[in-house]
Amino acid sequence: MYDGIKGFSDIYPEEMTAYREVINTIEDTARGYGFREIETPAMEPAEMYIDKSGEEIVEELYAFEDKGGRHVSLTPELTPTVARMVAARGQELTKPIKWFSTRAFWRYEEPQQGRFREFNQTNVDIFGSSDPAADAEILAFGANILTGLGLTGEDFEFRVSHRDILIELLQAFDGDVNVREAIRAVDKSEKVEYDEYIRLLVDAGLSEEQAETFVDLLSAGNDDLNELVAFTERVEPAVENLQAVLAAAEDFGVREYCEVSLETARGLDYYTGVVFECFDAEGEISRAIFGGGRYDNLIESYGGPAMPAVGVAPGVMNSTLPLLLQRAGVWPAEELATDYYVLQVGETRSVAARIARQLRERGHVVEADVSGRSFGAQLDYADAINAETVVIVGEQDLENDEVTLKEMDSGDQYQVSIDAFPGDYARPTIDDFQSS
Amino acid sequence: MYDGIKGFSDIYPEEMTAYREVINTIEDTARGYGFREIETPAMEPAEMYIDKSGEEIVEELYAFEDKGGRHVSLTPELTPTVARMVAARGQELTKPIKWFSTRAFWRYEEPQQGRFREFNQTNVDIFGSSDPAADAEILAFGANILTGLGLTGEDFEFRVSHRDILIELLQAFDGDVNVREAIRAVDKSEKVEYDEYIRLLVDAGLSEEQAETFVDLLSAGNDDLNELVAFTERVEPAVENLQAVLAAAEDFGVREYCEVSLETARGLDYYTGVVFECFDAEGEISRAIFGGGRYDNLIESYGGPAMPAVGVAPGVMNSTLPLLLQRAGVWPAEELATDYYVLQVGETRSVAARIARQLRERGHVVEADVSGRSFGAQLDYADAINAETVVIVGEQDLENDEVTLKEMDSGDQYQVSIDAFPGDYARPTIDDFQSS
Repeated sequence: MYDGIKGFSDIYPEEMTAYREVINTIEDTARGYGFREIETPAMEPAEMYIDKSGEEIVEELYAFEDKGGRHVSLTPELTPTVARMVAARGQELTKPIKWFSTRAFWRYEEPQQGRFREFNQTNVDIFGSSDPAADAEILAFGANILTGLGLTGEDFEFRVSHRDILIELLQAFDGDVNVREAIRAVDKSEKVEYDEYIRLLVDAGLSEEQAETFVDLLSAGNDDLNELVAFTERVEPAVENLQAVLAAAEDFGVREYCEVSLETARGLDYYTGVVFECFDAEGEISRAIFGGGRYDNLIESYGGPAMPAVGVAPGVMNSTLPLLLQRAGVWPAEELATDYYVLQVGETRSVAARIARQLRERGHVVEADVSGRSFGAQLDYADAINAETVVIVGEQDLENDEVTLKEMDSGDQYQVSIDAFPGDYARPTIDDFQSS
Repeated sequence: MYDGIKGFSDIYPEEMTAYREVINTIEDTARGYGFREIETPAMEPAEMYIDKSGEEIVEELYAFEDKGGRHVSLTPELTPTVARMVAARGQELTKPIKWFSTRAFWRYEEPQQGRFREFNQTNVDIFGSSDPAADAEILAFGANILTGLGLTGEDFEFRVSHRDILIELLQAFDGDVNVREAIRAVDKSEKVEYDEYIRLLVDAGLSEEQAETFVDLLSAGNDDLNELVAFTERVEPAVENLQAVLAAAEDFGVREYCEVSLETARGLDYYTGVVFECFDAEGEISRAIFGGGRYDNLIESYGGPAMPAVGVAPGVMNSTLPLLLQRAGVWPAEELATDYYVLQVGETRSVAARIARQLRERGHVVEADVSGRSFGAQLDYADAINAETVVIVGEQDLENDEVTLKEMDSGDQYQVSIDAFPGDYARPTIDDFQSS
């Protein structure tokens, strides 16, 4: 017997039922906002990541040489691919470009709770707008999927930060600061002790005193952002931009889920303006649920036109989002649902098939025997797949031109004229016939 | 600027609209039959294919060594994976097991029309039933997706064959016949000249005279299957099984799409009983649209219980199905659809956002400005995304507590009280308010 590969999952139907409901909520929300679905390759030239992604991602690439000698990689994230696609057709596409897609990505990481080597994400991006309303629409979309899944403001929070605030603060200090390295230190701040955090910032070029001042400044919340401007005026445009995004989020009805958290930096190098991460408000799940932000320079760096961009990528299968939904008690039921089982015994198959066909045409989930089983075995099977109604097409009934409807929950049965079933009912049940 | 990899496709939103409609039809049909969605890894141990798949597939594997030294392969097909999953839980799963999934697969083949290195398929399988009704349900599902997509019996045909008929006929000849090789010759018969076909059969161990007899026997259609039994009785059970499958297909309403075609063999080695391929009835597309069949020995060969199985795998993205739909004139429109554009100018964003939110909650596709654009630019954009209705939320109207509805097709406009919009209408239009 073969085993699947470590860090990769098999998802069986019951569990998939819950995942599908989550994916549908996310995708329906995206469609509602006018995000348009795209489909993208699972493989790209490895250089795309080696040139542009952060170190961490490059170390985790599933890269190899294909039979044609190309150095290729499975996609560890979508952003470089959409950047390539926008760059390829940037001039001809109507702006803003609003795209989404749900698919798998691959990173060779150590598997742990909520982290796998293969994981699914829905990527949602807006290209071509630098307006704060675009950042806010991404926040609103992110919040709407969670409320659509049954979560409330008690369950999650968006920690909102701004890369340019971090960058401008760092550059306000005298000395030669490695901004990229310092931002990585900020990204790690939640995971390391204070002393280690300071040491990482000192490694990035700040003095110890500067590092302490910097850390202190980052504790500014929404109400004391002006203290940052008092520290250095160069941070003012970024602070105003963050405030404008939060004002738009207020108009969009999602300000309540956002709190300013400048310690949130995001790991990837390509982010520019606003960045954010969604966390479990109860703190049980320590890692971010998902995150996003603005990356205004990436398209141009891929050879495309100058093109602002902002996006978010909630994970679905094999990610932390299911953990949050489970923690909050809103994870969908992991069970099969079946509208009708058409139970057929004797020489009645063509009639049973006609009934099954008509019920399917009305959009129902309808199973019928494909195993030549006995009455009892079929009824057990109907029960196992949670059939709501069983339509019994037996030889004796048929001689009277009747079929029997059986509601599985109540056990109620009722004989219905074969010509009257399913009739014009969208979802025929015993009640429709008993009352008529 | 980077290029994507040869044989891999970027699908932009307009094209994806059509693909999504096709995928929805296929998946809704599968759900209607009670097939349950599963999700499977994109990567498996390479040995799974090297041990079990046909030579052709092994030559086309995207196989490589991962960072942990595992010899892995991207999945070239789903069957070995579902076989592994059924084998792992075979005893505890309720039978019949009816699964489907839509996803990408990868084969290093030479790209040509309708063939790519990355392609999508919906795999649909029944495990645990050897009854002819299971084969027929797979045929019915296959035909129903095509009729659901707008095709008729004029457009496509299922060429139905039976591996055991081929095998028993071959074994009825004196001599040492390599059955596997002979079946591969049959699979190639459409693509090679008669002489070459005979030569391939002779290579497989038939004499030239036997080969000619065999080819002649394979031309038997539905009405002369008994001639095969007259030739050798050992073929009788297989002939009866094929006839029973076709009788069930009759009951299921899809017999009319099926014709017996024993020259149809399917390329993969693991098939047993009934096999079939769907072809363009007009012959414009020479390659099979998709195919399927019975493979009763595979689960056991993967270390699972003895478990009959039958399935089909229509391709979606990057396959021949779109070519057939285009040829028949039923390929869905490649254009964006938008229900509402909420046009907002001046200090009206919170009202516009409230309206957009309410319309989205009713399930509509609703875009609103995220770029701070002028009235005219927003109207142009609404036109570009094919918005049906534009809701204009302007400062002047708002002073009168009104918004303006504009139907883009007719150009009609109508002022509606802000409190009355969207009201209780599921899909509010000008007509709802003019008539009230």
